[in-house]
Amino acid sequence: MKPELGVCYYPEHWPEAQWADDAAQMVETGLSWVRIGEFAWSRIEPNEGDLRWDWLDRAVETLGAAGLKVVMGTPTATPPRWVCEKHPDMFALDEQGHVRGFGSRRHYCFSHDGYRAEAVRITRLMGERYGADPRVAAWQIDNEYGCHDTVVSYSDAARTAFRNWLSEKYGQIDALNTAWGNIFWSMEYRHYGEVFLPNLTVTEPNPSHVLDFMRFSSDQVVAFNRAQADVLRELTDTPLIHNYMGRTVEFDHFAVGEDLDIASWDSYPLGFLEDRSDRGEDWKRRFARAGDPDFQAFHHDIYRAVGKGRWWIMEQQPGPVNWAPHNPDPAAGMPRLWAWEAFAHGAEAVLYFRWRQAPMAQEQLHAGLLRPDSVAAPALAEAAQVASEMAGMEIETGTAPIGLVFDYESAWAWKAQPQGAEFDYFRLVFDFYRGLRRLGLSVDIVPRDCTDLSPWKMVVVPGLLHWGGLSDALATYEGVVVAGPRTGSKTADMQIPLPMGPNMNGVEATVARVESLRGDMSVPLAEGGAYQFWREVLEGDTLELSEDGIPARVGSAQRQYLGGWPDDDAMHRILGQAAEKAGLEVLDLPEGLRIRDAGQWRFAINYADHDWKLGKHITGAPTGRIAPHDVSWWLR
Amino acid sequence: MKPELGVCYYPEHWPEAQWADDAAQMVETGLSWVRIGEFAWSRIEPNEGDLRWDWLDRAVETLGAAGLKVVMGTPTATPPRWVCEKHPDMFALDEQGHVRGFGSRRHYCFSHDGYRAEAVRITRLMGERYGADPRVAAWQIDNEYGCHDTVVSYSDAARTAFRNWLSEKYGQIDALNTAWGNIFWSMEYRHYGEVFLPNLTVTEPNPSHVLDFMRFSSDQVVAFNRAQADVLRELTDTPLIHNYMGRTVEFDHFAVGEDLDIASWDSYPLGFLEDRSDRGEDWKRRFARAGDPDFQAFHHDIYRAVGKGRWWIMEQQPGPVNWAPHNPDPAAGMPRLWAWEAFAHGAEAVLYFRWRQAPMAQEQLHAGLLRPDSVAAPALAEAAQVASEMAGMEIETGTAPIGLVFDYESAWAWKAQPQGAEFDYFRLVFDFYRGLRRLGLSVDIVPRDCTDLSPWKMVVVPGLLHWGGLSDALATYEGVVVAGPRTGSKTADMQIPLPMGPNMNGVEATVARVESLRGDMSVPLAEGGAYQFWREVLEGDTLELSEDGIPARVGSAQRQYLGGWPDDDAMHRILGQAAEKAGLEVLDLPEGLRIRDAGQWRFAINYADHDWKLGKHITGAPTGRIAPHDVSWWLR
Amino acid sequence: MKPELGVCYYPEHWPEAQWADDAAQMVETGLSWVRIGEFAWSRIEPNEGDLRWDWLDRAVETLGAAGLKVVMGTPTATPPRWVCEKHPDMFALDEQGHVRGFGSRRHYCFSHDGYRAEAVRITRLMGERYGADPRVAAWQIDNEYGCHDTVVSYSDAARTAFRNWLSEKYGQIDALNTAWGNIFWSMEYRHYGEVFLPNLTVTEPNPSHVLDFMRFSSDQVVAFNRAQADVLRELTDTPLIHNYMGRTVEFDHFAVGEDLDIASWDSYPLGFLEDRSDRGEDWKRRFARAGDPDFQAFHHDIYRAVGKGRWWIMEQQPGPVNWAPHNPDPAAGMPRLWAWEAFAHGAEAVLYFRWRQAPMAQEQLHAGLLRPDSVAAPALAEAAQVASEMAGMEIETGTAPIGLVFDYESAWAWKAQPQGAEFDYFRLVFDFYRGLRRLGLSVDIVPRDCTDLSPWKMVVVPGLLHWGGLSDALATYEGVVVAGPRTGSKTADMQIPLPMGPNMNGVEATVARVESLRGDMSVPLAEGGAYQFWREVLEGDTLELSEDGIPARVGSAQRQYLGGWPDDDAMHRILGQAAEKAGLEVLDLPEGLRIRDAGQWRFAINYADHDWKLGKHITGAPTGRIAPHDVSWWLR
Ligand SMILES: [Zn+2]
Ligand SMILES: [Zn+2]
Ligand SMILES: [Zn+2]
Repeated sequence: MKPELGVCYYPEHWPEAQWADDAAQMVETGLSWVRIGEFAWSRIEPNEGDLRWDWLDRAVETLGAAGLKVVMGTPTATPPRWVCEKHPDMFALDEQGHVRGFGSRRHYCFSHDGYRAEAVRITRLMGERYGADPRVAAWQIDNEYGCHDTVVSYSDAARTAFRNWLSEKYGQIDALNTAWGNIFWSMEYRHYGEVFLPNLTVTEPNPSHVLDFMRFSSDQVVAFNRAQADVLRELTDTPLIHNYMGRTVEFDHFAVGEDLDIASWDSYPLGFLEDRSDRGEDWKRRFARAGDPDFQAFHHDIYRAVGKGRWWIMEQQPGPVNWAPHNPDPAAGMPRLWAWEAFAHGAEAVLYFRWRQAPMAQEQLHAGLLRPDSVAAPALAEAAQVASEMAGMEIETGTAPIGLVFDYESAWAWKAQPQGAEFDYFRLVFDFYRGLRRLGLSVDIVPRDCTDLSPWKMVVVPGLLHWGGLSDALATYEGVVVAGPRTGSKTADMQIPLPMGPNMNGVEATVARVESLRGDMSVPLAEGGAYQFWREVLEGDTLELSEDGIPARVGSAQRQYLGGWPDDDAMHRILGQAAEKAGLEVLDLPEGLRIRDAGQWRFAINYADHDWKLGKHITGAPTGRIAPHDVSWWLR
Repeated sequence: MKPELGVCYYPEHWPEAQWADDAAQMVETGLSWVRIGEFAWSRIEPNEGDLRWDWLDRAVETLGAAGLKVVMGTPTATPPRWVCEKHPDMFALDEQGHVRGFGSRRHYCFSHDGYRAEAVRITRLMGERYGADPRVAAWQIDNEYGCHDTVVSYSDAARTAFRNWLSEKYGQIDALNTAWGNIFWSMEYRHYGEVFLPNLTVTEPNPSHVLDFMRFSSDQVVAFNRAQADVLRELTDTPLIHNYMGRTVEFDHFAVGEDLDIASWDSYPLGFLEDRSDRGEDWKRRFARAGDPDFQAFHHDIYRAVGKGRWWIMEQQPGPVNWAPHNPDPAAGMPRLWAWEAFAHGAEAVLYFRWRQAPMAQEQLHAGLLRPDSVAAPALAEAAQVASEMAGMEIETGTAPIGLVFDYESAWAWKAQPQGAEFDYFRLVFDFYRGLRRLGLSVDIVPRDCTDLSPWKMVVVPGLLHWGGLSDALATYEGVVVAGPRTGSKTADMQIPLPMGPNMNGVEATVARVESLRGDMSVPLAEGGAYQFWREVLEGDTLELSEDGIPARVGSAQRQYLGGWPDDDAMHRILGQAAEKAGLEVLDLPEGLRIRDAGQWRFAINYADHDWKLGKHITGAPTGRIAPHDVSWWLR
Repeated sequence: MKPELGVCYYPEHWPEAQWADDAAQMVETGLSWVRIGEFAWSRIEPNEGDLRWDWLDRAVETLGAAGLKVVMGTPTATPPRWVCEKHPDMFALDEQGHVRGFGSRRHYCFSHDGYRAEAVRITRLMGERYGADPRVAAWQIDNEYGCHDTVVSYSDAARTAFRNWLSEKYGQIDALNTAWGNIFWSMEYRHYGEVFLPNLTVTEPNPSHVLDFMRFSSDQVVAFNRAQADVLRELTDTPLIHNYMGRTVEFDHFAVGEDLDIASWDSYPLGFLEDRSDRGEDWKRRFARAGDPDFQAFHHDIYRAVGKGRWWIMEQQPGPVNWAPHNPDPAAGMPRLWAWEAFAHGAEAVLYFRWRQAPMAQEQLHAGLLRPDSVAAPALAEAAQVASEMAGMEIETGTAPIGLVFDYESAWAWKAQPQGAEFDYFRLVFDFYRGLRRLGLSVDIVPRDCTDLSPWKMVVVPGLLHWGGLSDALATYEGVVVAGPRTGSKTADMQIPLPMGPNMNGVEATVARVESLRGDMSVPLAEGGAYQFWREVLEGDTLELSEDGIPARVGSAQRQYLGGWPDDDAMHRILGQAAEKAGLEVLDLPEGLRIRDAGQWRFAINYADHDWKLGKHITGAPTGRIAPHDVSWWLR
């Protein structure tokens, strides 16, 4: 596969006279793709039924004529004011019951049928106009589901739809009462009309109630997306895409991905480091201009799985953004490095966001490849460099040696019932991912319903709510397995199963009890490192004790269960030993230096602000040093 | 008095076939009491008037047949959904006006007459059924008043009831205007219909308004409880009990206690340390597995006073709980130690919560004496150990040498007008309590309306809003008195009195002015230690100056007033000198080691995670060492 | 000008029999002015139309007879309950839509026509009664606009008024759509009825929308004030005054000041240090009893500008206040020092708040000159000392060497779009002010619409949204100019201009891009010090590079633009060099020691708690030392 570059463009923001020059400069830079259309509803249809295709026709014509392939976005993330006048109850409500109204974006409730019909209507009209247009080579549906915490809504529409969803799922109300354990605290319902959304309760709601509400909410996203996808399928043969966000777990991306052809995500390494990293202030300081060395890679692997192998970056940060608490300039080289990290993980395309910095409205301090005055911003030359470096290059992703299970339901379950302030599912899985990457291991993300684990030499399963179909897959799997903590500790209904966890195929063990720990109370392990935040008292064949004499790991070298959340040292040691057991060569990469294997290529990527001697850290690497914020690749 | 053990049990959570085995195992463990019924309303009355006593009859029968004494709980803390359908406005509203609805527990407003009638109705029905049942040996009314901040409600029902309450109290509206000082900021009312609840104001409401609203809110709890107590009095001769919570001061526990026979409280030492301690992170770390060494004792003494000598622990933490920010395992020995601390303070019974860990709903990660799979959790053996240790033991509480005044109105007053961010009444009194306990002194809690102080050698009165009847009691008291800061600084209407405070019998003094201080601005005292958070400029016979030359203590050795909040060192010195003046022997117990005298027994209790040489710290103690988390007792 | 002293008094709080004695003691202390009437509406008009002038007549008579000049306050900050009954929708709503109701003060929405009419009515009645009374020598309108965050309201009245305001400003709706850049995110409106207030949006609203809403909200304050001012102009010839607050920037004080004769402000140095300082905990600790050494001076200079040369302190802190997180006692000498600092900045009068500490309601722990029991508080003697020291003294303010531009619109703009968490306009300008004051330079505050800068030797312009009329003023200005960061970076509509900023007359430069920085990421400058929080990449004639090689200052020594937020060291160096270029002598005053030049006088003011050798730090100072918290002045 030959990776490509592109950019996001808003022709409606610029004088029409500028379009042709912009398109020519894009092509000259080496860009192939241009995304347009998203957010343009008020120009396409300024009043109901008053359709203005002319300008968009000319934009497609101008961009296509320059040789660019267009990604057409459906504009449903930004319904115009008149749509909201027509459907005054289409807004989501927040947990306190306040309306989340018009004036920015994503101002709709996924459960509102009236708005869903409007979204389908405008999508059909766009599909009819451009679905067969040869210049439109892909479609993006909506934009960044879940951004600004928009998956969950406490509206009347959501309540009605939730009751229907529950009724479908459970049939007789007693089944729901049993599944949720409503006998506890006399929460039993007599009929579905008595069920409300799990907000505004006196103390925390029933976690089974919350989990079902999150499943429902996720399903509403899936259905909303599918409604548009179904329409576009009738009207176009080009691939359908959605652009997901970073660290967004409120809906099941795998399920949305089922209806699409390509997964893409919007990668803002510096913004995400600032506003959604758990690694503390010193870490953020060290990587403030480079981004977390593992965060992008983790998402690349997630979205490759969500896209069943096909994935893009639809929006790539080119310079400072506008929305994090602090918005520093990327270090020189990072816009190039980030693109290469994506290609090393199999991205088919990387589109920078955006072509020219907007001078108005909310994002006017978000950098583009051009400044507002059309002078080139630093990232433009880096994009051009990437384009020339990758000319003619073929990258095949292949299968990674490691499979790491990532499951959205588990994120919802532990958010409903964290038991310890630090227990966040994304954070837990990401810590395992980071540990694998420090070992120099490439990773595939595996969904919970995977039935065949044989492609991977080793499978890692942290914090999985319940085993589901994976249990059968394990029964026939011959590789190494590392699971826990909390994996298998619940039923699908979010109750404690009998026998109690982990219920792990091939490991005789019981989690006798659990405790959550203050950050200053880590439990040292006998062989080094410690468990932090979470520790279980295990019964079973002991592999290792904690220093206080409690079994910390049980099972066998081939198939083990961890009764805690390993800190960096324990993670490195335990995963390293397991990988060696699986026959894998492991490294100990220093902070900031990372590798990724893709087909015949090995990529080395340096997020540090100083250089490293490559050969010292990476077996088989070329001699010489890798500069700060530089990328290097060679045939392995 | 021979102390007893027990447990909380929810027969409705388990198959009926399991009940008899459970009961037998309880008895075998040495438990005498079992509490049931609370939270079971939806099973007793699944629809209005559709009463299902059969299962509860059989539960009582099974438990009683095993030899257990039943505490029957009225289920009014968890009205079923149908009750809420019938009374859709029965919910409390929070300070912002959001409804606090169904879906967890305590979802009712104390002022709602319709719900109060439902509560009385179900209580009457239960009383009629089980009031004379010989197997039911005590009753618990409702559960944990005030838990989850549920005393105060801003509902329409509360507003109406508050207006009536004010009208009763003040008669003519001008009396209210004068009492509240409404001339200030033109807040004068013309009639009671103009008075609203003190929420949603632009800046802080009038503190007299707030204080009256808290008095009213407390009275609503008292009335709600009394309505059930009155019904049960007609129907049973067994003692009536309520289970209070830790650090809950939003209603007057003494007033509720007037209508009951026994006070009990729910003691969760690790949860409370995590979520309601002021001692800082290092302290929490040190005692994360043992609990604050003085917190439980303080509550034991409070509830002994609330119960007019009779008190229980209705719920005793047995292992990790589920509701604090972190929920560690207790150190081995703590479930035993906590029970002994309670008995040392005169508890008649200690019931562990709960028998078997629930596999479902909100508290599924709250430990029990049994695991969800019925295997014994560590606390079961500790409970059995306590049972065998206490067999035949008689403990008489007697009168402690120290009386410490604790007053709920003062808590409300200083919350309404803290004047300094750290000024919290509970924290202040608890600091004095801790100082006394460090001196090895046993303490009785004394309510504000006590008329005879002669039982105590020394009386301590920190932060009392106004003297009330205690002033007369002081007039004839011959012991040592230590009062202040803020004691006597207000009228009952929450105004500054003339003459200004402290208006302390036997001490000629005036608080010329006050200041609240940043935590890093303590005021050193001439003889050691310092005042923190709060300092007054005193006029009167000076006992000690602060280093900046301002009188810090006034009065006499026999009767003194403190113009500040002593830090640990000053507290130890000042209280120690006063206790010696009162003829008491004082110790300087190290951190974590505590003693308690009860009748002929002296108990030593070690919350530290290392041992101590007993005789070195405690006069007359046996030689030898006390192990970590151990208890020791001897005849004194 | 001969400065005067005074006090705030509430005759309605005290028995009438006390008034004459109070008045006599005021005069004896050396006070000339007494403010009354504000907050007294419920006593003036207890029911609609039921006017009770008698007591106020007698109060004016008593005070006047003693020789005091009365400031009469209109009571419109505290409408009585009956006014709210009459206009139940007169309250402001907060950003979440919660009503901000009766029960404290400032409970009205500036946009409510009905309440505005009530305010005008009571003002007219008071004006008719006392406008020509010779004992009433000045009027205060309302009290502390904006206190408790009361400028902005999200009520229906505000929404309607905002739509009208927009319609007036923009005419055709397309002009608004263009000005706000509503094409972005399809936010275009078809008519004004579609525009809502910028609250309750899903993510941040359009900053142009916010900026216009702040302009509107400010205009509503101006209109509300003008409505009263217009009435009083008809009825009195005495000066009209409003008492502004500290660090309140939500409305344009210059615009309100246009309708008044004198600006006054309420100076609470210790309260403000505690609750609105950015300098960190150590700083707060060091100045906890003295107040920030520059905060009062900055406001004195602001309000001198707002009052077009005439300004007062209407409320001066005399002892501990009641409303900050901590409320310490001022150090001995501070009530005197604060008055002298004000006179050094040209205050015509300083009134202490309040005469006697109130024993009731919200402010009962706010000190007065007298204690509640009428004993003198420490500040009384200090006030008397000031009175005797200033007897016969003439102070002329003159023009300062430095003009510092302060602009309320810029504060709103950067709050709407801070881009970095620390970017607060007040903080930025105050940092420049502090740097100037450390250099020993006296400062005049200059509004954005100043057309003639020639009075000042040097003009400093940090963070100005857009140049506006100042650009023309610069064209003819011959002094030194220091501008930036962010100055000139936007259009008046809050868009990025073309050419991009700074668009500074006489400086050829472009801000190529900007970044906001974590507090631990300061950018060192080549010649010392660093930029913190904010850094721009500049193009132009470079005066200095940052250590990473990027132009940090551009232009010339005479007229320069700073591409960052200087830290203390950089600020001192850069402003010092610029001031020397402007021909000014500069000092390096140590922390806490400050000077102020007023006409022929030089004042030295010592906020430190230790003494300084004056001559060592201040050229031409008398020999000898200045005591802690002391003031010294001499002819310069
Ligand atoms: Zn709300
Ligand atoms: Zn409980
Ligand atoms: Zn004031």
